[in-house]
Amino acid sequence: MSLIVQKYGGSSVSDAEALKRVAARIVATRNAGNDVVVAISAMGDTTDDLVDLAHAVCDNPPDREMDILLTAGERISMALLTMAIQAHGVSARGFTGPMAGVITTSHHGRARIIDVSPGRIEKALAEGEVAIVAGFQGLSHDSQDITTLGRGGSDTTAVALAAALHADVCEIYTDVDGVYTADPRIVSCARKLERIEYEEMLELAASGAKILMPRCVEYARRYHVPIHVRSSFSDKDGTWIMGESDQGEAMEEPIIAGVAHDRSQAKITVVGIPDVPGTAARLFETVAAADVSIDMIVQNVSAHGTGVTDISFTLPATDGVKARAAIEAERDSIGYEEIKYDDTIGKLSLIGAGMRTHSGVSAKFFGALRDAGINIEMISTSDIRISVVTRVDQLDAAVRAVHTAFDLDTDEDEAVVYGGTGR
Amino acid sequence: MSLIVQKYGGSSVSDAEALKRVAARIVATRNAGNDVVVAISAMGDTTDDLVDLAHAVCDNPPDREMDILLTAGERISMALLTMAIQAHGVSARGFTGPMAGVITTSHHGRARIIDVSPGRIEKALAEGEVAIVAGFQGLSHDSQDITTLGRGGSDTTAVALAAALHADVCEIYTDVDGVYTADPRIVSCARKLERIEYEEMLELAASGAKILMPRCVEYARRYHVPIHVRSSFSDKDGTWIMGESDQGEAMEEPIIAGVAHDRSQAKITVVGIPDVPGTAARLFETVAAADVSIDMIVQNVSAHGTGVTDISFTLPATDGVKARAAIEAERDSIGYEEIKYDDTIGKLSLIGAGMRTHSGVSAKFFGALRDAGINIEMISTSDIRISVVTRVDQLDAAVRAVHTAFDLDTDEDEAVVYGGTGR
Repeated sequence: MSLIVQKYGGSSVSDAEALKRVAARIVATRNAGNDVVVAISAMGDTTDDLVDLAHAVCDNPPDREMDILLTAGERISMALLTMAIQAHGVSARGFTGPMAGVITTSHHGRARIIDVSPGRIEKALAEGEVAIVAGFQGLSHDSQDITTLGRGGSDTTAVALAAALHADVCEIYTDVDGVYTADPRIVSCARKLERIEYEEMLELAASGAKILMPRCVEYARRYHVPIHVRSSFSDKDGTWIMGESDQGEAMEEPIIAGVAHDRSQAKITVVGIPDVPGTAARLFETVAAADVSIDMIVQNVSAHGTGVTDISFTLPATDGVKARAAIEAERDSIGYEEIKYDDTIGKLSLIGAGMRTHSGVSAKFFGALRDAGINIEMISTSDIRISVVTRVDQLDAAVRAVHTAFDLDTDEDEAVVYGGTGR
Repeated sequence: MSLIVQKYGGSSVSDAEALKRVAARIVATRNAGNDVVVAISAMGDTTDDLVDLAHAVCDNPPDREMDILLTAGERISMALLTMAIQAHGVSARGFTGPMAGVITTSHHGRARIIDVSPGRIEKALAEGEVAIVAGFQGLSHDSQDITTLGRGGSDTTAVALAAALHADVCEIYTDVDGVYTADPRIVSCARKLERIEYEEMLELAASGAKILMPRCVEYARRYHVPIHVRSSFSDKDGTWIMGESDQGEAMEEPIIAGVAHDRSQAKITVVGIPDVPGTAARLFETVAAADVSIDMIVQNVSAHGTGVTDISFTLPATDGVKARAAIEAERDSIGYEEIKYDDTIGKLSLIGAGMRTHSGVSAKFFGALRDAGINIEMISTSDIRISVVTRVDQLDAAVRAVHTAFDLDTDEDEAVVYGGTGR
């Protein structure tokens, strides 16, 4: 008998009929002899509808009350799913985030989980019940107020519960059947990954793959929670996310896990900035004070004798207005000539733990982009990732070129043998 | 400066625009220098929609999860109202029932308030904030689960908060502008009462007046909370509900407070029941075990020598099926001949604390019904109430006849001088 934590969201919980299908799957898992804990997202458009209501009564809704408002969505789906399971004659019990012992910081709208005290969940399991937990929410340790965990929060709820309960696996049910070597909408011959390491998945998520949020993967990595990403519309295995040491006997690992892309970034170039110590620091302090996260940074080599240089950086396009306003307000203290803003960029990232030990990856990567006629504007790397910024209208071609160059292309029949384990 | 508890529900909170109007009224009360605590109901059709969802996933929704589901409605309106008040630049803070310290029994669906620990509300008030509380809900003392207070629960929340906070008044905002001597839809010349005693209001509520639930009035009576029932669509005074001793100097009290009616009852007659000690007890134990509340009871005088009699009683028509099934299941142990069921009855009640000291009320009451040609089927009385059961199609005529006989009719101009205080 295993302890399985499952998470359902998206179109799996779009309406009452969808909830009944989810209930049937949970009942099947339970009847197979497993202990089951479920984290669930809000149904369909509930969250959007609640946000609209907030804006109908208030131009700038306060974060604390926004959290109370939005958490109602997961409570509704949690109660309904619990009822739908009980309709099968299977004992089930519903819990809000606070009841499930999810303790967080008090940062409303994007609280972080500090601790999970799953006493009530453990009691329910011991009494033979399926436990259904409202995802995305917790209780602030400091203020005893209701908090939300931000985007992808229900995934984090599931992983945190799995960690606290020492579950055998955390199954994340989504609209797709796993993690692919690239977005199948761009690369039709992308392979489904059978397995991927935490660090690779972290880089993929941070590089624009939307399947999981980085913080959820990070949480799983820290507590060694195996994640199984799979489709709620089939029984096929999806993709397992786990540590290298969790993968049993040594095996030939693929060099490259996949290619991620991101169209949501913009580039700001600060032109004519004095090339003296401390100037860049002032610029990035200004941006940080505006609560904007920056990603890639390039500083041009100062043209000989001019004493000024240009600095470019990328940031989420949604923060563009805020960042520009902040930099413009500090124009005198930073002392630049002008700001350029460009939201027609795309970012491509090649990710693979095998880069650490295999040489020649960079050469093949840049060669493929050159052969495809892609112009590269910025570059950044980690030990398992190479990222470049291109024109957005060249991004798809760039993704396909790199995917092919690293032999990631497959036909459907080959998909299941990726990784060489035949699992 | 006063501490005012306000309760809003019904059409006052039908949608976002209605919530904004409620917010403006609360802000005005606050800006007049008062401390304000608000209990709020769910918006518009929210509760009905949630009930429909429950029945879409489950034929017989479990009570515990139903309470989690339904309480989402008041949390949504609570958060939105708090936002709408903050939009005026007035500090406000929202609280769920559990956060507000509303501790209840664990009887899901109709929990009773055991205690209110309003520490967080008091802190918010001390910090100059308006406190907005989700009505209808609490936290079970035994199970630490979310509970609901049953019909009219938000009114009870308001009164319980007013009691715990020693508020100066509990204002219940409704769709009507006060308590009337009769339902104005039946008696067009009914008077609005300026003031009514707790006990009279209790009898009115128990006799079918829908403006407040008896348990809410009972709570107010026990803790001496003055209630002001008024319209959210005007600034006019409504009706004050208070104790006799709270009404200041002695004054001439009206004999009769009003006439209530109730179309929601049915009558069960158990025919041919053995007229021996203990038989009636077995019958009513059977009904009580089915969780059905009975109201009026009539036992016919045993026809001489037959040894059998008939017992009739009234009950909520919604419990008719349940009660009949229970009695039929005990047919052998009770030993009756047959059951008759009649849901075409109406109940009329005349209520007034003045009955205690004024004679002749009964004579005038039955005389008025006789003159109007009303046939009386059952009678029950308390020291401040006379109730009769009639055919339902005679009920309106009966109400009008009694209202007129006791000089309760008025034209609109007289309404505000009722009670003789000129208040």
